[in-house]
Amino acid sequence: MKAGIVGLGKMGKNLALNMMDNGHDVVAYNRTPKKVKNIEEKGAEGAYSLEGLVEKLSPPRVIWVMVPAGDPVHDIITRLSSLLKTGDVIVDGGNSHFKKTLERDQMLGDKGIELVDAGTSGGVTGARHGACMMVGASEDIYEYLEPLIDDITVEDGCIHTGTTGSGHFVKMVHNGIEYGMLEAIGEGFEVLEASDFDLNFEDIARVWNNGSVIESWLIELTKNVFEDRGNLEDIKPVIDSSGEGKWTVEEAIDLGLSVPVLAEALMVRYSTQQDENFGAKLIAALRNQFGGHDVENK
Amino acid sequence: MKAGIVGLGKMGKNLALNMMDNGHDVVAYNRTPKKVKNIEEKGAEGAYSLEGLVEKLSPPRVIWVMVPAGDPVHDIITRLSSLLKTGDVIVDGGNSHFKKTLERDQMLGDKGIELVDAGTSGGVTGARHGACMMVGASEDIYEYLEPLIDDITVEDGCIHTGTTGSGHFVKMVHNGIEYGMLEAIGEGFEVLEASDFDLNFEDIARVWNNGSVIESWLIELTKNVFEDRGNLEDIKPVIDSSGEGKWTVEEAIDLGLSVPVLAEALMVRYSTQQDENFGAKLIAALRNQFGGHDVENK
Repeated sequence: MKAGIVGLGKMGKNLALNMMDNGHDVVAYNRTPKKVKNIEEKGAEGAYSLEGLVEKLSPPRVIWVMVPAGDPVHDIITRLSSLLKTGDVIVDGGNSHFKKTLERDQMLGDKGIELVDAGTSGGVTGARHGACMMVGASEDIYEYLEPLIDDITVEDGCIHTGTTGSGHFVKMVHNGIEYGMLEAIGEGFEVLEASDFDLNFEDIARVWNNGSVIESWLIELTKNVFEDRGNLEDIKPVIDSSGEGKWTVEEAIDLGLSVPVLAEALMVRYSTQQDENFGAKLIAALRNQFGGHDVENK
Repeated sequence: MKAGIVGLGKMGKNLALNMMDNGHDVVAYNRTPKKVKNIEEKGAEGAYSLEGLVEKLSPPRVIWVMVPAGDPVHDIITRLSSLLKTGDVIVDGGNSHFKKTLERDQMLGDKGIELVDAGTSGGVTGARHGACMMVGASEDIYEYLEPLIDDITVEDGCIHTGTTGSGHFVKMVHNGIEYGMLEAIGEGFEVLEASDFDLNFEDIARVWNNGSVIESWLIELTKNVFEDRGNLEDIKPVIDSSGEGKWTVEEAIDLGLSVPVLAEALMVRYSTQQDENFGAKLIAALRNQFGGHDVENK
């Protein structure tokens, strides 16, 4: 299959290489021309404008968009909507909010353009050597793309989750679960670290990943972290987030569901990002008011 | 090596079979003689009393105790302490609280008896075909037991965590992490289940276990659950617990550490066990008091 790729960041570039390894022809576009040149040297056909990319593909075109969620993907899809024709297919391989995907599907559907949402997990290594994909698409479009998707995912690592939007929805929940799992691991090692026993965290994580109930890719990465970074002395305890954990909790709230661990995992991240917790200062002062407890002043 | 086993429940029986598969001689005792007869048929030497078990072993004896934590293990260890001699070794393969293990180690140490705590994960299959073990023991005793432990664990699946007590401590934290991971998975599927998309949970879990970030044994089991039990219509939403999650949170509290996800995962379990939440009834009534909001009466 011949596919266009928009966005040659870490994920897009590796997905392009993955497609080419599997015998697919790739036309690649990126805003900064240098990345296009680089991928040309690896065997892709380069495009130096979105218009040029569209011209180099024949209908029904397949354009895989691998740019950050939010404004970047919205801008690309909006521009493509006026360049593409009925029957062409846009694949949004990023982490768009599934409700945005549903809106865009509506907008593109009015023009006969198909939108496919391919939630992608497995990180950069997955993009390069076989990802895990949750794909929302109409039946016939999924069938059309299946040979390509099968090739760039690991064995039994792709699923047609249902209609457009469902891929991003399932990927969102996947990431929500990931937030909770990560926080559980972090808290567990917090307890290990504080104990009086003289423990080897790298060895513990390695052994936990061989036959224990919590055996997982995240525990394997935990082992790698201790191997690479020792006792983490150089790392600030600040956890960033890219949206899906927040959206999972928001969706649960909209649905009236109780998801305390997913919510708490998110709150912990926010708390690590606050330089000063104003609420904590207030509580310290209130304890002083009613109980005369000491307040630590700056 | 020749080892005694006390307790032929699911874990003990399978560990005995595992040891025999690996060429070790097993003398097995269980309170109910029927289980001893069964294991005799599988090639073990049976003992019909704790005294008999001790007699059938030569010093330095190794007796692997695989009975439930709490009173059962305390009773067995106390009785063994008056039957065994200096240099003999008791292995507690269950989930004893590490502080109890430290106390018992003190008591046994006064008599020259060695206590080894072997926290064991991997469930029944692990016990049978290769477990994951976290072992607390003095250096020389671990070295003495290592050939046996190596044989009954999976490759790279055993660790000498440190001095006696550390094995149960690390296993406790392992289970604490497990509580958090399980709750994260449960909450994620709660959101999937409530959505308008028509999703196949078994397929989603299967695909998540091939190349995604949350790839894990627990997600594999999640796939099995949906395969075996469909939409879970027949299952009551009640989660039991066996202690380690609670102990992990208690230990964190003792250490002054914040472990909100591990604590919340435990609270969710308790909440599923309550027939009626008295606090919820009070809050409903209070909302009626101050805001005139409806109370649902029985």
